[in-house]
Amino acid sequence: MSNYCIGIDIGGTTVKCGIFKVSGELIDKWEVPTRKENAGKNILPDVAEVLKKKIVSHGLTNNDIRGIGLGVPGPVEPNGYVSVCVNLGWHKIYPAREMSALMGGTIPCKVGNDANVAALGEMWMGGGKGRNSIIAITLGTGVGGGIIIDGKIVAGAHGLGGEIGHMHMREEEKEFCNCGGRGCLEQVASATGIAREAKRNLAKSDLPSKMREFGDAITAKDVCDCAKAGDKLAIDTMETCCRYLGWNLALLAYVVDPEAFVIGGGVSKAGAYLINLIQLYFNEFTQLSANKPEIVLATLGNDAGIYGCARMVLD
Amino acid sequence: MSNYCIGIDIGGTTVKCGIFKVSGELIDKWEVPTRKENAGKNILPDVAEVLKKKIVSHGLTNNDIRGIGLGVPGPVEPNGYVSVCVNLGWHKIYPAREMSALMGGTIPCKVGNDANVAALGEMWMGGGKGRNSIIAITLGTGVGGGIIIDGKIVAGAHGLGGEIGHMHMREEEKEFCNCGGRGCLEQVASATGIAREAKRNLAKSDLPSKMREFGDAITAKDVCDCAKAGDKLAIDTMETCCRYLGWNLALLAYVVDPEAFVIGGGVSKAGAYLINLIQLYFNEFTQLSANKPEIVLATLGNDAGIYGCARMVLD
Repeated sequence: MSNYCIGIDIGGTTVKCGIFKVSGELIDKWEVPTRKENAGKNILPDVAEVLKKKIVSHGLTNNDIRGIGLGVPGPVEPNGYVSVCVNLGWHKIYPAREMSALMGGTIPCKVGNDANVAALGEMWMGGGKGRNSIIAITLGTGVGGGIIIDGKIVAGAHGLGGEIGHMHMREEEKEFCNCGGRGCLEQVASATGIAREAKRNLAKSDLPSKMREFGDAITAKDVCDCAKAGDKLAIDTMETCCRYLGWNLALLAYVVDPEAFVIGGGVSKAGAYLINLIQLYFNEFTQLSANKPEIVLATLGNDAGIYGCARMVLD
Repeated sequence: MSNYCIGIDIGGTTVKCGIFKVSGELIDKWEVPTRKENAGKNILPDVAEVLKKKIVSHGLTNNDIRGIGLGVPGPVEPNGYVSVCVNLGWHKIYPAREMSALMGGTIPCKVGNDANVAALGEMWMGGGKGRNSIIAITLGTGVGGGIIIDGKIVAGAHGLGGEIGHMHMREEEKEFCNCGGRGCLEQVASATGIAREAKRNLAKSDLPSKMREFGDAITAKDVCDCAKAGDKLAIDTMETCCRYLGWNLALLAYVVDPEAFVIGGGVSKAGAYLINLIQLYFNEFTQLSANKPEIVLATLGNDAGIYGCARMVLD
């Protein structure tokens, strides 16, 4: 019996790796630097070299491994093809096939987009544990999303599934988003977006605010901390940002209606304060039904990716 | 071999019924009045009585029928339970179990929400034919939606899947929607919503407009016809409504990213004019990717429900 599975979450700086029991127990994790030079040709061999030693060090053989899941920071086609992955230097590659060959050709490998597999991880052993359909939302530098319905990732027919950060929400926004659009969710609800909103509010107000002490370097965490401490302008800022998030979750509820939303990323460290504020606006925009998705915090942090990669090979 | 399947689309006024070959060919269709009195207890027996005769008249027996699919105008729980269906007078009923018993207990029956099964019908033999994931949008009195991913209906964990008519879109809306919210898509993009928008535009403008001839009885069709004929206020109205539709489709593309959107309902009779206008705004709000879902017209009209009901039993 193959009772172990392996998750490999490939980021632009490091590759996070983990060995799991198929029950979901993490038995070892480590990182390998991501060597992006030479079109990223060293990335998978570097990972495989360490992985082989790790398997042996745990007294295991390839026969004990049910599969290896890979997460990559970019679009993955349904057949596992990666046309281009800017953050890794990859072009026209089938990463799962290459990984399988590097490991001797006997271990099944799968590949998925990193935001999607992180959602799967949170469903397996994180904030969404025990549920079968969730939407995971990551509030970091941008806003990422991963959609799981009936235990399966919804990647979409053109790789756009779960790209919720670019949903147009704010009609009056004048600045452009990286995507070329204007008024995208991530322009107002990412860590970057929250800090920017705070700076805008400070600039157009004469009110005293503790936020002024941080100057241009103010972060989303500073804004959250000031809001929790009762700072009026910080509260206004968080209310604006969380209203867009609550509205967005309401939109998602009326489309796929998951069992729960699982909120992660740096901004989610604001905890219950953030969730309660999002919940308030979510309720306002979902009047059709009293019975609706829950909103919970993610629990796996940066490990969500390796959990999800490992879970991916269990289907 | 059971080479036939049956679709029963139960509406508030009539029950539409069809016998299909499993290939998708419709071989007979008929209607039965919906008797809502007595808590709707006669509806299924009425349907069964006619259906038995129809099966015989086509030289078939129950053994030739692979299954019977029922569509009901209200929420259906995953186990087939209907807690309440206002339009039929039903309370606490398992319609598929009852139908199966009425037909002798040997034919498998399934039940689904009517908007969802209509989407399945359009995917099977309509505007979405040949595709595996579509979102069907019905622009009628309200705005209905049905979401199909990998050939399966996404009904949602609380029956809210595909309730796109109640997605909040218009921040400045002052009137309330039936759902208790404000600024729902169907307030501006349903047939009712388009007519209302036209009346608002006429009231606040001094421009001459052919739309004025219709007075308070103006319909969405009148607005579309005037717009096609070059009437300035009618064009403005259609641009506003179609901008919300294009924006909404962009939101849906960034959530589930179907292969295609299939637009049906009375408003869709405006044809290419409507689709082209929606497409214009859809492109504006989906700048992330040149590769995106198509927007096509539904083709089955009022028969989409019976097609979808019949298709439901083939899985």
